[in-house]
Amino acid sequence: MKDSTKYAVFGAGSWATAIAKMLCENQTEIGWYMRSKPVKEHILKEQHNPSYLSSVEFNTEQLKLSNDINEIAKYADVLIFVIPSAFIYSELQKLTINISNKIVVSAVKGIVPETGLLVGEHFHNAYNIPFENIAVIAGPCHAEEVALERLSYLTISCADAQKAKMIAQNLSSDYIKTKISDDIIGTEYAVMLKNIYAIAAGIAHGLGYGDNFQSVLMSNAIREMKRFIKKMHKMKRNINNSAYLGDLLVTGYSVFSRNRMFGNMIGKGYTVKSAQMEMNMVAEGYYAAKSAFLLNKNNVKKTQLPIINAVYSILYENKDPKKVFKKLTDKLD
Amino acid sequence: MKDSTKYAVFGAGSWATAIAKMLCENQTEIGWYMRSKPVKEHILKEQHNPSYLSSVEFNTEQLKLSNDINEIAKYADVLIFVIPSAFIYSELQKLTINISNKIVVSAVKGIVPETGLLVGEHFHNAYNIPFENIAVIAGPCHAEEVALERLSYLTISCADAQKAKMIAQNLSSDYIKTKISDDIIGTEYAVMLKNIYAIAAGIAHGLGYGDNFQSVLMSNAIREMKRFIKKMHKMKRNINNSAYLGDLLVTGYSVFSRNRMFGNMIGKGYTVKSAQMEMNMVAEGYYAAKSAFLLNKNNVKKTQLPIINAVYSILYENKDPKKVFKKLTDKLD
Repeated sequence: MKDSTKYAVFGAGSWATAIAKMLCENQTEIGWYMRSKPVKEHILKEQHNPSYLSSVEFNTEQLKLSNDINEIAKYADVLIFVIPSAFIYSELQKLTINISNKIVVSAVKGIVPETGLLVGEHFHNAYNIPFENIAVIAGPCHAEEVALERLSYLTISCADAQKAKMIAQNLSSDYIKTKISDDIIGTEYAVMLKNIYAIAAGIAHGLGYGDNFQSVLMSNAIREMKRFIKKMHKMKRNINNSAYLGDLLVTGYSVFSRNRMFGNMIGKGYTVKSAQMEMNMVAEGYYAAKSAFLLNKNNVKKTQLPIINAVYSILYENKDPKKVFKKLTDKLD
Repeated sequence: MKDSTKYAVFGAGSWATAIAKMLCENQTEIGWYMRSKPVKEHILKEQHNPSYLSSVEFNTEQLKLSNDINEIAKYADVLIFVIPSAFIYSELQKLTINISNKIVVSAVKGIVPETGLLVGEHFHNAYNIPFENIAVIAGPCHAEEVALERLSYLTISCADAQKAKMIAQNLSSDYIKTKISDDIIGTEYAVMLKNIYAIAAGIAHGLGYGDNFQSVLMSNAIREMKRFIKKMHKMKRNINNSAYLGDLLVTGYSVFSRNRMFGNMIGKGYTVKSAQMEMNMVAEGYYAAKSAFLLNKNNVKKTQLPIINAVYSILYENKDPKKVFKKLTDKLD
């Protein structure tokens, strides 16, 4: 891979903006696709994203901005997708050029709802990207702390270690440490599942459960995550590494987590619809709960998922959070 | 074991008071030893502990209170020790009766500094208690939430499962769920080690590290704890169970944790001495850091303990927290 490798970010939310910032520490120019024309114009004029991490100042000479997904896809060699999973399928419909020779990196925190596939699998199936050219960026990393340049660690997973290393190097800086992994499937599931557990933590908080219970919930969540991922893709992995446990903790315990906030509102008695309207944000875990529930239901090798099932039944079967959690407490230990 | 088995609590801090409360949910009478005469008089007159969990009201008819450790040790069959590890050795000097036929339960969160032994080992060596009559109470459980009757989970470890069950039953209630374990050594080390990691979390916070880093620190801490305990006592255990990981999380993440608070002051630049004076409380992790460091140093089978070593060098070798943590960040992943 030459030094002239070009990177591009697709999306303009907080995580996309954080990744653009990381890349700008290393690249003279990056491509950046976003749907919204006003956002693009604002960045060009004011040197920051108007809606997310607006404290982060960009040197616009480093940015090749465009509202044309094909232009940016053509421009770059490494395409980093950071679009909420609920919108990725429809956004990708606009992609008409052949990207089969590109490296595709998923920083999407969820499953493609239309297909039930991991983002990497979706790119492999729909765009003929070989698996060794697909990578995943995993945390634990709140975008808000990248904006503040607080020390954070990322894990880059790719079947091809050389490519993982290259991407990792280009994201590294004084405040970003990186690590590579070959568990692309496991890290991608972890990124998705943690959001469901963060919703569970939020519901528990909203219902009045305390810190003692939260720690039991997280202890059970990491064991449940391990079982789930093992069923989906069996390989040697340490579930307590930062990409799995660390990411679960930063999401489950942090006030920055929109998933936890969404759960909290549900626990306090909001309906799903009113919580979503009130937040005006996508809680990835909402979609992930359905995907994970269905993946397990349709898998020949089922496993026990008491926490995911509890969240699913509250969000999709209109069950009473208080009663569901009362039952759940008997299944935890 | 007969139903007439009598329980006693030794100590009058917050955790001792919480355990007394749990027992009172099940027993018609419990023994309760405390050093301080004024505290005893206050409880008898006002029905609550003046200094700790003072919102918890006791029915004094259920309490056999005494300032004589021998009187209470003689009275009970199951002796639950809840004295800070720094004082247990000297308190036990007052014990002159033979207790070799009693069941001894440790709810002490640390090692006996004078001997470097776990509390259970100390009782075995010094008081001839057979190992099958020694038990440990592990969390995750902040005493403050017991006072509020918030749902909490305890793990009772004992080599004899019947005895573990009996003790567990007598601590259980609407708001306390219990589980038993045979890993008495592992749970006792976990209870001690988590306090060192909570100090580390506090130091990091005091130095300005954020949530992203905290989650990486905790992810590394549980892996370090696993290595440490495995060297000390190899057996099949799931380190992600509530008694290990859950207890680490509730201590590392909670504002109730005095160890975290102590670390926070150190990170903010207080000396050890001034932080201890300011807090006017024993941070168990302070003693535990030394014990764990020495245990590993003197063990023929050493293991890598970057976090414990970092805390030790700050607390006991007067090293600069900022520099030590900067180095530590390179050892974490």
